[in-house]
Amino acid sequence: MSVIGLLTDFGLNDNFVGVMKGVIYRINPQAKIVDLCHEIESHNIHDAAFLLKSSYPYFPEGTVFLIVVDPGVGSERKSVIVETEKYIFVAPDNGVLSFLTERDIKRIIQITNEEYFLKPVSRTFHGRDIFAPVAAHLSRGKKIEKFGTAIKKIKKLKFSEPQIKNNRLMGEVMYVDHFGNLITNINQDAFLRFIEGNKFQIVIGKAKISKISSSYQEEKKGLPIAIFGSFDNLEISLYGDDASQRLNLNKGSKIYIEKRTT
Amino acid sequence: MSVIGLLTDFGLNDNFVGVMKGVIYRINPQAKIVDLCHEIESHNIHDAAFLLKSSYPYFPEGTVFLIVVDPGVGSERKSVIVETEKYIFVAPDNGVLSFLTERDIKRIIQITNEEYFLKPVSRTFHGRDIFAPVAAHLSRGKKIEKFGTAIKKIKKLKFSEPQIKNNRLMGEVMYVDHFGNLITNINQDAFLRFIEGNKFQIVIGKAKISKISSSYQEEKKGLPIAIFGSFDNLEISLYGDDASQRLNLNKGSKIYIEKRTT
Amino acid sequence: MSVIGLLTDFGLNDNFVGVMKGVIYRINPQAKIVDLCHEIESHNIHDAAFLLKSSYPYFPEGTVFLIVVDPGVGSERKSVIVETEKYIFVAPDNGVLSFLTERDIKRIIQITNEEYFLKPVSRTFHGRDIFAPVAAHLSRGKKIEKFGTAIKKIKKLKFSEPQIKNNRLMGEVMYVDHFGNLITNINQDAFLRFIEGNKFQIVIGKAKISKISSSYQEEKKGLPIAIFGSFDNLEISLYGDDASQRLNLNKGSKIYIEKRTT
Repeated sequence: MSVIGLLTDFGLNDNFVGVMKGVIYRINPQAKIVDLCHEIESHNIHDAAFLLKSSYPYFPEGTVFLIVVDPGVGSERKSVIVETEKYIFVAPDNGVLSFLTERDIKRIIQITNEEYFLKPVSRTFHGRDIFAPVAAHLSRGKKIEKFGTAIKKIKKLKFSEPQIKNNRLMGEVMYVDHFGNLITNINQDAFLRFIEGNKFQIVIGKAKISKISSSYQEEKKGLPIAIFGSFDNLEISLYGDDASQRLNLNKGSKIYIEKRTT
Repeated sequence: MSVIGLLTDFGLNDNFVGVMKGVIYRINPQAKIVDLCHEIESHNIHDAAFLLKSSYPYFPEGTVFLIVVDPGVGSERKSVIVETEKYIFVAPDNGVLSFLTERDIKRIIQITNEEYFLKPVSRTFHGRDIFAPVAAHLSRGKKIEKFGTAIKKIKKLKFSEPQIKNNRLMGEVMYVDHFGNLITNINQDAFLRFIEGNKFQIVIGKAKISKISSSYQEEKKGLPIAIFGSFDNLEISLYGDDASQRLNLNKGSKIYIEKRTT
Repeated sequence: MSVIGLLTDFGLNDNFVGVMKGVIYRINPQAKIVDLCHEIESHNIHDAAFLLKSSYPYFPEGTVFLIVVDPGVGSERKSVIVETEKYIFVAPDNGVLSFLTERDIKRIIQITNEEYFLKPVSRTFHGRDIFAPVAAHLSRGKKIEKFGTAIKKIKKLKFSEPQIKNNRLMGEVMYVDHFGNLITNINQDAFLRFIEGNKFQIVIGKAKISKISSSYQEEKKGLPIAIFGSFDNLEISLYGDDASQRLNLNKGSKIYIEKRTT
């Protein structure tokens, strides 16, 4: 099995992604390459981490994830391979793997062995010259210790977490999907622990919602609903419409959960 | 042979399509996944049906088509598998397979056997939790009767058909492609039967055209042409330009064919 | 080995690319299809040639490149197969292969043998009816002489070359990538030969730059840098920003290199 999952901010207008695939097939003709997403906002490491976190568990055991969201390409930032029980991640060490906990991580290798690089290594396209060939060799079963030296830690980014303030649970919109659904950082577990079986009111922008729906279609067209979506996070949606546009809300917008006693 | 053709309205900005592919490879590592299109306008079942109809006959026998244009996800709409002589279609039962005739269809199964679902099944992403795993199992050769119970009918949508009124054949633009070509619902057969060998005039917006071209390049740049395109439908185009923009015409715009006796 | 690299201006909003893949898999179920790029500006043969030139050497030996940027579809333009030492190119003969030199080319075949076409051949979609089936048969190892007759030349387009005028090296922006980097037609070799070890000044729009950077991150955010990018051409970039937008420069913008003696 040799699935390689690609996640980049390269977009699809240029040849960057195609060239990386050419490089991979030169090394591993048996690879199965899956485009996880290439439309990450340029240099947005947080978004990349969020999408990767909610995607990787659905992939086959042994999948090699190749992440190139790399504003620091050509600078002194490290390149790493991170091994977990089931998966291997190849990425710049810039926080894009922050969601992996110490318990998840079995081993971290700093990529230093130039033997596996495409030469000459360019200053601007390590995706092609370093990450793609390393991922391709890994997908063929090359041992991860061959690629460099073990290190102890990867860089961690802070992700905003929901907080309780003035008796309200406050979170924020982390991501807006293609349909305009607003995906917040409040997951089902945090929500249930906060409301403790009480009635509640969700306040976001000018919208107030007092129940959790079980389908996008539950409300009339144009009325906002709250639902636990495919990421297990609280989502605010409009059935048949774009919630982000209509409610004028976006990444970073605050959301409040209030308990109601009456 | 195990080609899976994917058609969704998920776009490529998120991880939805990538995650479905991860799910498929977990079940069938030998699958060949083809992206038919992911940029269907959100929830536009008519467009999805139109593109699928004009695509599927070009695929290898045995291809499993996986369609997720699903405004009713999480509601009571059924999920179905439809078998034809050469192909298998997996889709929500919302009309997206309306183009299949009773003669085309050999069998319809309502998907009910949860054994093949990813669990827990989310409320918002049946593409990942139901359709992708079912399609992957089908592509490995699992018998379609394993997935549920036979039913007799699928939901049918109405598609606008050309009509003869006041001695004119009236149709409309069904689809506008990436180049701005206006694809109408008048096919070659209907056209020829109407004009019966007479001279004719085609009227659409402010444009009048009195012949059928055999290449986009036949007219001078900027002049509208009528051509029977790759979908076998009458198309209105501008050589080297975007007909939809220039002529200010779009989906739903009317087109008239008039016979000329002089 | 049977990699097929696809380069088109079809975009991803329609079913054109998906249908071509269906056709390919019908003929060669073992093909590995790589999307090189489908977002070439409609009918822009120069851009297609530029992207192809900077991509193809990264692919495995034996790769068949299938190029459908074809404003002349349905007209009298020829269709060709061009064989080089390591690769095969299938394309309309419209200049999209201009970057191949006489030394690169081993053989040119004009595609005339209709035996390998999909029938009936449409007037508007030779990508599906001619190029895809020919590429698929070639990827299975069918000999190139089977597809038609040898010819001597392919059509060549002129690409603007840097020039020395009034003691300045003048070039232009050839391509703007997804990040807004401005890629010029001045390569490293031409640059070094011109400045002959002198100090220099690069002038583009209102920006003046007097050194070559070794990473996008070398300057402060918002300051323009000059770098030899992954295409080995001189690129003008803004770290963490979109140079094309901020500097109001685009394809065709002039760039000047001046020697400084003080």
